Amino acid sequence: MYHTVPHSAALSFVRAVFEAHGFPPADAAAIADVILLADLYGIESHGVQRMLRYHRAIAETKTARVGVEPEIVFETPVSAVLDGRDAMGQLVGIRAMRLAIAKARTSGIGMVAVRASNHYGIAGYYTRMAVEEDLLGVSMTNSEPILVPTFARQAMIGSNPIALGMPADPTPFLFDAATCVVPRGKLEVYAKRGDPLPEGWAIDETGAVCTDPGRVISAILGRHGGGILPLGGAGETFSGHKGYGFGLICDLFTAGFSGGPFSNHKKDDPKKANTSHFFMAMDYGLFGDKATTRARFSRFLQDLRETPRAEGCPRVWIHGEKELESEVRRRREGIPMNEKTMDELRRIALDLHLPAPSFLRFSPRT
Amino acid sequence: MYHTVPHSAALSFVRAVFEAHGFPPADAAAIADVILLADLYGIESHGVQRMLRYHRAIAETKTARVGVEPEIVFETPVSAVLDGRDAMGQLVGIRAMRLAIAKARTSGIGMVAVRASNHYGIAGYYTRMAVEEDLLGVSMTNSEPILVPTFARQAMIGSNPIALGMPADPTPFLFDAATCVVPRGKLEVYAKRGDPLPEGWAIDETGAVCTDPGRVISAILGRHGGGILPLGGAGETFSGHKGYGFGLICDLFTAGFSGGPFSNHKKDDPKKANTSHFFMAMDYGLFGDKATTRARFSRFLQDLRETPRAEGCPRVWIHGEKELESEVRRRREGIPMNEKTMDELRRIALDLHLPAPSFLRFSPRT
Repeated sequence: MYHTVPHSAALSFVRAVFEAHGFPPADAAAIADVILLADLYGIESHGVQRMLRYHRAIAETKTARVGVEPEIVFETPVSAVLDGRDAMGQLVGIRAMRLAIAKARTSGIGMVAVRASNHYGIAGYYTRMAVEEDLLGVSMTNSEPILVPTFARQAMIGSNPIALGMPADPTPFLFDAATCVVPRGKLEVYAKRGDPLPEGWAIDETGAVCTDPGRVISAILGRHGGGILPLGGAGETFSGHKGYGFGLICDLFTAGFSGGPFSNHKKDDPKKANTSHFFMAMDYGLFGDKATTRARFSRFLQDLRETPRAEGCPRVWIHGEKELESEVRRRREGIPMNEKTMDELRRIALDLHLPAPSFLRFSPRT
Repeated sequence: MYHTVPHSAALSFVRAVFEAHGFPPADAAAIADVILLADLYGIESHGVQRMLRYHRAIAETKTARVGVEPEIVFETPVSAVLDGRDAMGQLVGIRAMRLAIAKARTSGIGMVAVRASNHYGIAGYYTRMAVEEDLLGVSMTNSEPILVPTFARQAMIGSNPIALGMPADPTPFLFDAATCVVPRGKLEVYAKRGDPLPEGWAIDETGAVCTDPGRVISAILGRHGGGILPLGGAGETFSGHKGYGFGLICDLFTAGFSGGPFSNHKKDDPKKANTSHFFMAMDYGLFGDKATTRARFSRFLQDLRETPRAEGCPRVWIHGEKELESEVRRRREGIPMNEKTMDELRRIALDLHLPAPSFLRFSPRT
């Protein structure tokens, strides 16, 4: 069951939660902005649905620390390595992308690899920062192992999203894709709804395709095998090895270049999330006149939109369009919120002695 | 029917063909080296199987020109745009990657976008050049439209491979993946063999899944709809939109940054192949001590190799391993060559008044 919650109300509550945890108001607002953008985009798995996990990471496991400052540990004119000091991933991510943008301004390109961070929300939040500065942006993160390599039966690689944003008109190109078929958050959403998974998303601990989200999630958590298939599915017939390769590349750029543990060793130290990220900002003027490049790319995107449609299909989308349209709609109409998620928010409010906001007391049904 | 041909014999013949077309010996040797590496790797679709097409591009359509010199038309310390002047793609590609490597030596990173080139063979040839210089290498190319965007029924994007190579021990990581499920060359191989395609590789002009390689190829050539599905397949259930996005990104970096036509307009001028490429070489010392990064990444690859295997699966591979092992074996044992391909080579020899080499007169059956 879903309820509709005004965006501003959800944003205020999330901000209040992080302020109650001791974050300065500007930091709490920044974290809330990243989380709520996922809900505005329609990416429920990365929105307030994750609040209980963030709350526990700060209050219980203490894997996310308050009041620490990320530190640059290596630097060149075009690159840097940032130690996140276990700060919230959103704060580390914003800091790192700002550094990449500053380097792109002076050197044409800036690349920042990050270690010792936490879950940073949607990868596409940070590419959008670059796009708003008229730069190409890249953002990647590793995560706890969930992707099973081709022909294996144990998860070794994270969901490992690769996001890339490029300015265009009328709307930017905003690509953001987990390199496994679907991210773990999507399994959680299916589990909350009680729906079976499509066949070909995940395998169980024996290596067989499995449609029970709960079983896959507990197999992953227990590390007794099973996980999500790479983009391209099982085996090589539909090129699952390519999705496996993209996931591996994400781990190289994040953990490999930052010095953080690769996905399969991320959980070795229970006191740390040990998440690694990678950010790039690039001035596309490195390849000639920006206005020309931007106009030509925009024309290409328009050609794609106008491709003859397959029967029964309403539209050919450009990456980011669905999300940007959802954002406009949901800023106006509100965010759909699962009842279980609302229960979790009530629990957080109780824990922190925060007054429950009105949307948690009564909400109109959708 | 396949025959086994010694690598050196095939290489000499291919070299002789390009010399007969007027290429200087060093250039003919370079082109032959790229083409034969595909056969050594076991990527038949990009090997001598393509010789008739290269031959026609030089002699008949004249879309590939002999005796022209690629030209740098834009340059910064970290980037360049190269106009290929319609030279053979292999020569343009080698020139461009050398330029990227030189920039990486002085600036840490070098990126070269290329327009007005031709088919350059396997993308992974050029990443290997970077890897041999202890650099990370990236190579991409666009191609005639073959990939159908999600929910569309007409091919708009090329097979658009993305290749990435990174030094590691005991063998480098060499990823090279078309962003459609399979490259067009694979359809040609199935057509030559007379085998049906697996369901889910391609759609016909109506938008329906199609297993007849000949029908799909002629639909693509005639531009009356149909094509190959993106990595992830039809629709969004298995994230076909991600493969579509990776293909689109490849067109941005190749055509978008070089000023060449995007895949869907590549064939507008019948006198030009108008292929665009992108190359990057990066010193991974931009992120700290190289030996440490290399050792850590190599350890991660070893962890992946040692992942518990799914039942009935003999091995978990690292990208490039199959190809490097095939190379060692085929340098020793020879290259399997399809009889139809051998007929095509005989025709080329006749055209050019070249004596047919012994492997085209008599070959032991495999």
